[in-house]
Amino acid sequence: MPTLDHIASYRIQPDPGSPKLSRPIVGVDQDGQPISSQVIEERPLTIYLNAQEIVTAMTIGDYPEYLAVGFLKNQGMLKPGERITEVEFDEELDVVVVRTDTASNYEEKLAKKTRTSGCAVGTVFGDMMEGVDAVDLPSTTVQTSWLYTLSHLINRTPSLYLETGAIHGTVLCEADKPLVYMEDVGRHNAVDKISGWMHLENETPDQKILYTTGRLTSEMVIKTALMGIPVLVSRSGFTAWGVDIAQQVGLTLIGRMRGRKFTCLSGADRLIFDIDPDTVPDEPKKNRRKSAVDE
Amino acid sequence: MPTLDHIASYRIQPDPGSPKLSRPIVGVDQDGQPISSQVIEERPLTIYLNAQEIVTAMTIGDYPEYLAVGFLKNQGMLKPGERITEVEFDEELDVVVVRTDTASNYEEKLAKKTRTSGCAVGTVFGDMMEGVDAVDLPSTTVQTSWLYTLSHLINRTPSLYLETGAIHGTVLCEADKPLVYMEDVGRHNAVDKISGWMHLENETPDQKILYTTGRLTSEMVIKTALMGIPVLVSRSGFTAWGVDIAQQVGLTLIGRMRGRKFTCLSGADRLIFDIDPDTVPDEPKKNRRKSAVDE
Repeated sequence: MPTLDHIASYRIQPDPGSPKLSRPIVGVDQDGQPISSQVIEERPLTIYLNAQEIVTAMTIGDYPEYLAVGFLKNQGMLKPGERITEVEFDEELDVVVVRTDTASNYEEKLAKKTRTSGCAVGTVFGDMMEGVDAVDLPSTTVQTSWLYTLSHLINRTPSLYLETGAIHGTVLCEADKPLVYMEDVGRHNAVDKISGWMHLENETPDQKILYTTGRLTSEMVIKTALMGIPVLVSRSGFTAWGVDIAQQVGLTLIGRMRGRKFTCLSGADRLIFDIDPDTVPDEPKKNRRKSAVDE
Repeated sequence: MPTLDHIASYRIQPDPGSPKLSRPIVGVDQDGQPISSQVIEERPLTIYLNAQEIVTAMTIGDYPEYLAVGFLKNQGMLKPGERITEVEFDEELDVVVVRTDTASNYEEKLAKKTRTSGCAVGTVFGDMMEGVDAVDLPSTTVQTSWLYTLSHLINRTPSLYLETGAIHGTVLCEADKPLVYMEDVGRHNAVDKISGWMHLENETPDQKILYTTGRLTSEMVIKTALMGIPVLVSRSGFTAWGVDIAQQVGLTLIGRMRGRKFTCLSGADRLIFDIDPDTVPDEPKKNRRKSAVDE
């Protein structure tokens, strides 16, 4: 099982001690007694692309630059070859400006988005589907022992989730090593921050595995495919359309990964079963994410 | 504890046996053996208000009429006094059209939304905050014994969550009786369906309690306040801004409600502690929602 070498593999990991990311709030418990609860922050961040205001995202507020770049990239707003010349974050105004060498006018694109997308439901779906047909994912193999090691390491990494709950986590991994662990209150911000990190650090997706605490919905599958990552793993369950799209683009989709168990509903041909699941230690109770549907 | 009378209180409850809402998908398990998994459906539903296409939501597809009306209402697109003349669902096209006696042009409003909201992060935040200052919630009292009864009943109600996971649940309650239990894959669809039901059934919010499996974020708190419901209860945790807004509008906010425990971080003055939590039976393990952050 995992060694210190694996833990040392993190290039970014959560900072649960940061006073900027959570604060204690006083209330009462079930007996009416005073109680102090550590609660995650949630603040607006407005993203500009050049002179154009694009969106206001609700976020915990760490890594605004990665969030902004990843959001724009995952929404197809950065053209292939378009070069980012500057990313500027104004902490007082909660604004981040991404400047590129192509001053575009996105009004037409934004108008389209209004018509096709679900502002209150999640995504610019019409736009995102556009790119999926062109996706060609590599035939990278995945040893099932890696999945257990990753799950073990990620559950033990100090995180805001372990401190406060009510937060999503997504981890970019390579083989059995977690590299970048992002958390956020916003459903897709954690993924967008990873996408922004990959873009700005020129990381290639071919050998990567994406691990998420969230559900494997169509949107999550599409984002992963557009990022070029061939394998998506989650503790949570699937939606049927998420599975359909994964099968269509040949993405390996693994869900309900808890303790010794997992279910693979797409791209099982990438898997190499190199470990007997019965030899894997079960998850200690304290490491189980025990929360509800959406915490 | 709960009686049959309480269960009989449901006016709408989940239909987990419906073949329209989930289907079996074949994959492999951790041993590489074939496995058939019951997976929730997720499909697009396009909502029109009169002649204007408003949004495409990803939904499980039940109660499209309630979803459409609730969405429009929660986004402030139905003016006070604006009368709905017809709600028409076309199952083949996945389209629902809400017709009102005021033919409005929402292009200006939609343009504003594009600038201020987070399409990939959840909501039309700017617009929603507008109405919050005007909210005046009633001083309805809540007996803590009701909370335990509701939690007990809701966890035992047959649901898609228990069949397939990967789905949100929201329940409209009155005193210790659950009335309407909606589920959906989309984060806010379950709430919107309840809002639509209340609107079309002329239900008043004063004595209601809203129970959700999801987190108590700013957006969830704002929606509940705009619906006029004074009490919001969740198994999940809080965000700090969610608590701030609840305190500002005087909404009772109860989170981390599991077994005997809960935490109230706003509006505790509504609570009447009429039961000793130590006399409440703990949650049986099989009734615990055991999934990850976002399942």
